[in-house]
Amino acid sequence: MNDKRSLITLTTDFGEADYFVPAMKGVIYGINPAVRIVDVTHLIPPHDVYAAAFTLMCCYKSFPGNTIHVVVVDPGVGSARRPIMVMIDDYNFIGPDNGVFSYIYQLSRVNRVVHFTSVHYFQQPVSNTFHGRDVFASCAAYVSKQVDWKMMGEEISDPVRFNTPAATVTGENHIRGSVIHVDRFGNLITSITAAELTEERVRAGIRVRVGKHETSRLLGTFSEANPNELFAYFGSAGFLEVAVPRQSAASVVEARRGFEVEVVVGSAAPTIRSGS
Amino acid sequence: MNDKRSLITLTTDFGEADYFVPAMKGVIYGINPAVRIVDVTHLIPPHDVYAAAFTLMCCYKSFPGNTIHVVVVDPGVGSARRPIMVMIDDYNFIGPDNGVFSYIYQLSRVNRVVHFTSVHYFQQPVSNTFHGRDVFASCAAYVSKQVDWKMMGEEISDPVRFNTPAATVTGENHIRGSVIHVDRFGNLITSITAAELTEERVRAGIRVRVGKHETSRLLGTFSEANPNELFAYFGSAGFLEVAVPRQSAASVVEARRGFEVEVVVGSAAPTIRSGS
Amino acid sequence: MNDKRSLITLTTDFGEADYFVPAMKGVIYGINPAVRIVDVTHLIPPHDVYAAAFTLMCCYKSFPGNTIHVVVVDPGVGSARRPIMVMIDDYNFIGPDNGVFSYIYQLSRVNRVVHFTSVHYFQQPVSNTFHGRDVFASCAAYVSKQVDWKMMGEEISDPVRFNTPAATVTGENHIRGSVIHVDRFGNLITSITAAELTEERVRAGIRVRVGKHETSRLLGTFSEANPNELFAYFGSAGFLEVAVPRQSAASVVEARRGFEVEVVVGSAAPTIRSGS
Repeated sequence: MNDKRSLITLTTDFGEADYFVPAMKGVIYGINPAVRIVDVTHLIPPHDVYAAAFTLMCCYKSFPGNTIHVVVVDPGVGSARRPIMVMIDDYNFIGPDNGVFSYIYQLSRVNRVVHFTSVHYFQQPVSNTFHGRDVFASCAAYVSKQVDWKMMGEEISDPVRFNTPAATVTGENHIRGSVIHVDRFGNLITSITAAELTEERVRAGIRVRVGKHETSRLLGTFSEANPNELFAYFGSAGFLEVAVPRQSAASVVEARRGFEVEVVVGSAAPTIRSGS
Repeated sequence: MNDKRSLITLTTDFGEADYFVPAMKGVIYGINPAVRIVDVTHLIPPHDVYAAAFTLMCCYKSFPGNTIHVVVVDPGVGSARRPIMVMIDDYNFIGPDNGVFSYIYQLSRVNRVVHFTSVHYFQQPVSNTFHGRDVFASCAAYVSKQVDWKMMGEEISDPVRFNTPAATVTGENHIRGSVIHVDRFGNLITSITAAELTEERVRAGIRVRVGKHETSRLLGTFSEANPNELFAYFGSAGFLEVAVPRQSAASVVEARRGFEVEVVVGSAAPTIRSGS
Repeated sequence: MNDKRSLITLTTDFGEADYFVPAMKGVIYGINPAVRIVDVTHLIPPHDVYAAAFTLMCCYKSFPGNTIHVVVVDPGVGSARRPIMVMIDDYNFIGPDNGVFSYIYQLSRVNRVVHFTSVHYFQQPVSNTFHGRDVFASCAAYVSKQVDWKMMGEEISDPVRFNTPAATVTGENHIRGSVIHVDRFGNLITSITAAELTEERVRAGIRVRVGKHETSRLLGTFSEANPNELFAYFGSAGFLEVAVPRQSAASVVEARRGFEVEVVVGSAAPTIRSGS
């Protein structure tokens, strides 16, 4: 009936060399042969709950309604941390209750958070070290088969949240944020969005500083940049990013996640932004 | 009719950067458009038949019955080594006859080993260097379409086997094994199982030695471990493993596959193991 | 009706750690839930249009008819470079008009090249930096749903082409080519094919030179090679390759893509080639 329901995505730190990910998929297909599985990534740095939260946040809305997003980055596996499902209008999110869904709590209206307590929907025996297979994959497959959440667990009101990286406007002429991600191309994704760096501020001219480097060029596309030029742009996930054409800005600027980023407003001649 | 039949897994050393894996998938979908393909891994170290055998052994039972497991780690491609299918009650295994199915022979009742001889089911012309595409993927797709094995080859009785790494109890107080795998997190998987390290021996207190390091802590979960502590636990594949919380035990202990692991029984105060 | 149509392959330089690839898949499944997606690779070196063109060339014919091959290696994203579809009898190719389909133009009879101009089939708003999601994945999904190309854009006659690496016969006894790819095993794929290195020339005896190294051994299979021996063979993609058994020829010879390769004919005792 609801064909779109049966799409499950996987985001883990299991890597691609071991048996962890295929074991999860085997369990899912065993429970629901009709489901389709999409890998988000399995290359989250080990135990890096923040990176998992960021990556999921950037793509979950690209999936059709009723997709089930499973995240297994779980440094507390085997402890008392709860296996949960976060239910919003369009999606269900399944994973450990360690804050990995903090962006979802911030960005969406959450209908309900469910603590999976019914071991009937786990693979038996549940190993102490591989809940990805025995708990999360198993529960996701049952959810994809439309099992009622009330059969699987109970509603909770106190899921773990971490403070998502933010940017702050510190005075009329100054925005302070940080590098929240470095992508494959070495582009630096910052925590600064159009909410802080408004059109009005852009028109006043800006300088973006990362470490000892800075740029006053806020461009619409990579193709407007000059060779070897550090420049800024709003990326496809909605954040201000800093890049160098065909080079790694992370290497050029020697920046990593967590590095401070500043925008000073009114300090440079404005550059013309094309496109949207 | 038998929908579950049409699941094929792939375990190779082809990597993820070249055209080898997609070419295999293209051939499979061309023969059986209804099949589903699951990657186990393509990051087996080049020509490492042992690693492929281990990885498959850890996850093949997670898949639904009738799954076809294809392994292409094939240093002898183009030589006289036989392309074979190992048939057990629940699964078929397809790959080169180079010992890669040694764990299957050890762990399962084998109904039959078939040597694929009928070139009708190969892709023509068969290249000398890419049997993954022209022989193994092609045959797996036909098997998934329920082609009778008697049409595809003939039964053999002498498949190649290697001695699987084992642990030996050398006296009442001493177990000797080895590191058989290092996973993404740097956890050391040893050849020692609950068959050697029995509950009785655990109760007597143990010390686990790897290289110059040792631990007397056998825990049920990672969350019971102290920071920076080397500890042991039974992993999700059934083997004794050695780890350090949120660190690479392989780096801490400077151990690789093949390193000797010893367990001395009765030499330490027992630690309480929680969970199962 | 046309079930095979709904197969889409993806070749990108997006890597496997970021949200780019799953976002593309989410968009595709949202538009056409019945489609199947196959990853060719996402590990094309960043912006390396030549590597993408080579990889696609080696495997596109392994897929069933009507497969849609999507390539997103797009250093000019956001610029005026056109999003195009190259239509040949058996396949459609979708990607940026930057030469990435040069091998297709050379090897196939092209029925038509279409410039996608109808924004109706793009995801709105179209980001400036992620046409993989907003343009290419979106258009591929609509093409897989049999939308008429005339609805999506207009025919063009001047797609961008680069000169594909070739080998030249420079005198009766001399063939000059280059290394066009290094695969995971370190095997060197050269631009020399059986068109230049004919059976007749092989029978006269040859020497293959790469850098300071050379070999007079042209073998049919890896298994005929001696340990540590540099040898040549025709690989599964139809090119002359140079390898060392169970070692990386690229390391042994210290060669990279672009290195010159020479074949001198009649200068060595012929070696017997087995197989085809």
